[in-house]
Amino acid sequence: MGKLLIVGTVAFDEIETPFGKTDRILGGAATFIGLAASQFDIESAIVSVVGDDMPQDYLDLLVKKNIDISGIEVVRGGKTFYWKGKYHNDLNSRETLVTELNTLSDFKPVVPTEFKDADVVMLGNLHPEIQMSVIEQMNQRPKFIILDTMNFWMDHALTELINVIEHVDVLTINDEEARQLTEEYSLVKAAEEIHKMGPEYVVIKKGEHGALLFHKEQIFFAPALPLEEVFDPTGAGDTFAGGFAGYLAASDNMSFNNLKSAVIHGSNLASFCVERFGTKRMESLKKEELEKRLHQFKALTQFDIELT
Amino acid sequence: MGKLLIVGTVAFDEIETPFGKTDRILGGAATFIGLAASQFDIESAIVSVVGDDMPQDYLDLLVKKNIDISGIEVVRGGKTFYWKGKYHNDLNSRETLVTELNTLSDFKPVVPTEFKDADVVMLGNLHPEIQMSVIEQMNQRPKFIILDTMNFWMDHALTELINVIEHVDVLTINDEEARQLTEEYSLVKAAEEIHKMGPEYVVIKKGEHGALLFHKEQIFFAPALPLEEVFDPTGAGDTFAGGFAGYLAASDNMSFNNLKSAVIHGSNLASFCVERFGTKRMESLKKEELEKRLHQFKALTQFDIELT
Repeated sequence: MGKLLIVGTVAFDEIETPFGKTDRILGGAATFIGLAASQFDIESAIVSVVGDDMPQDYLDLLVKKNIDISGIEVVRGGKTFYWKGKYHNDLNSRETLVTELNTLSDFKPVVPTEFKDADVVMLGNLHPEIQMSVIEQMNQRPKFIILDTMNFWMDHALTELINVIEHVDVLTINDEEARQLTEEYSLVKAAEEIHKMGPEYVVIKKGEHGALLFHKEQIFFAPALPLEEVFDPTGAGDTFAGGFAGYLAASDNMSFNNLKSAVIHGSNLASFCVERFGTKRMESLKKEELEKRLHQFKALTQFDIELT
Repeated sequence: MGKLLIVGTVAFDEIETPFGKTDRILGGAATFIGLAASQFDIESAIVSVVGDDMPQDYLDLLVKKNIDISGIEVVRGGKTFYWKGKYHNDLNSRETLVTELNTLSDFKPVVPTEFKDADVVMLGNLHPEIQMSVIEQMNQRPKFIILDTMNFWMDHALTELINVIEHVDVLTINDEEARQLTEEYSLVKAAEEIHKMGPEYVVIKKGEHGALLFHKEQIFFAPALPLEEVFDPTGAGDTFAGGFAGYLAASDNMSFNNLKSAVIHGSNLASFCVERFGTKRMESLKKEELEKRLHQFKALTQFDIELT
């Protein structure tokens, strides 16, 4: 059974979409990553920080999914990271209305002793120095380190970001961010530039347009499943990353071929995430539902052209 | 050997991209469709109209690809349809600088007698009444009618457009146009609405994000091949349609499974079209190059997840 260490935010999200709005609900990168990864046969732990305004119910929800939360620091008298956002009609663009870092601004992650030998480390979007400090706490180089990031760090901590990117096996990044980071418009060229920065694999996330996996000259594409309804895209990218990381930790095989399966599993999980507000759909998701939808992914992409 | 009848513009394009600009060069929907379809073992003909300013060299280029041009009316003293456009830096958006309909404004298509029994009819983007008049000239209902259209006709000839859509087997349309036509944001729902309008199949083109094929409950997705360089996107959609139509005419099999292959062939051809200005790449394209790139499409999309 593989061990997965997840680092990222556990947060309050307040979301408005064309279909409704929420109060402060459970969100955060590590939450979505953890819930998605919990679908696989692994041991997992989250390293994060929250204030004591975080309801025990939300933490229990993670524990119920067999996620070790001993690495989630609860700051007494502190407030949890809070994000409020609004999606436009097409759900492809969103506006951040409020960001309160709160306890996140002084976050010093501490990796639990039992996870210092994790096989896979999934570094959710955070300050690159925080991501780096997690790598440095590991007993040995993990088999596989996955890093997610965003444009904010390119604008405000580029040197530190480039430093941590050098130490990871996979960078997951969205298309616009890949272009910003490399100053290449073509995603093929952008991936080549990222390979040169260190990562052997690059995953470029294109939201409703799927995800591309690059490994040197090889490219694999996983579409997003076309859905009748997308209700709330919040957490879809992290859910994708969690499925990707969880599958790799469970299968203990870091070949390109197995990474292809991992991006399909990630896309599969993300297709459920967007069906309800926040974490709602992920909380109740069953293995049978995942299996059924994998058949749809096969039907969606597989074709029979005889080649010589 | 299947017979394919193509109706659409043969035109002058003047194109500016971030990589350079052209003079008036050969363009038009029927031109790109015809060149793409000529890669398959079919008899094909173009029905169109040009002025006598159209150089014989351009028409000869079509004849050299075994395309029957007896249905291309040459209007003495007339001027050929002319489009001038400029692509922005990302090549995903373009601006039309000039559109001169010229001889196209009085176009009355006449289907050559030998093609009134065509197996497949590909109606390129034109006024829906012109498209309808072609269907009406056929000796019998063709095995397969494919219709391409654009938002302009939704704005200016919606009744006529809805009428011709009812008579076809496949509507090919881009994502924004599918949304406009159906007032559904979800492409799955948009395709359902289009099915209700008549077509058994719907192809939604998403440019660099690939194409979706819908057939009732079934969905198939063909990605666009990620390319190092996209030089000029002009004609890519028509090239896709030409590959789709040409493959179907050659294989004489209109099953969903074979249509899946047809959209892959269309995507394959389109991936070459964008590598040079205008029709340049399509003029020299060899069957071996197509075959080689089909392997890339397989590698890009095929995965091995065991399903129960």
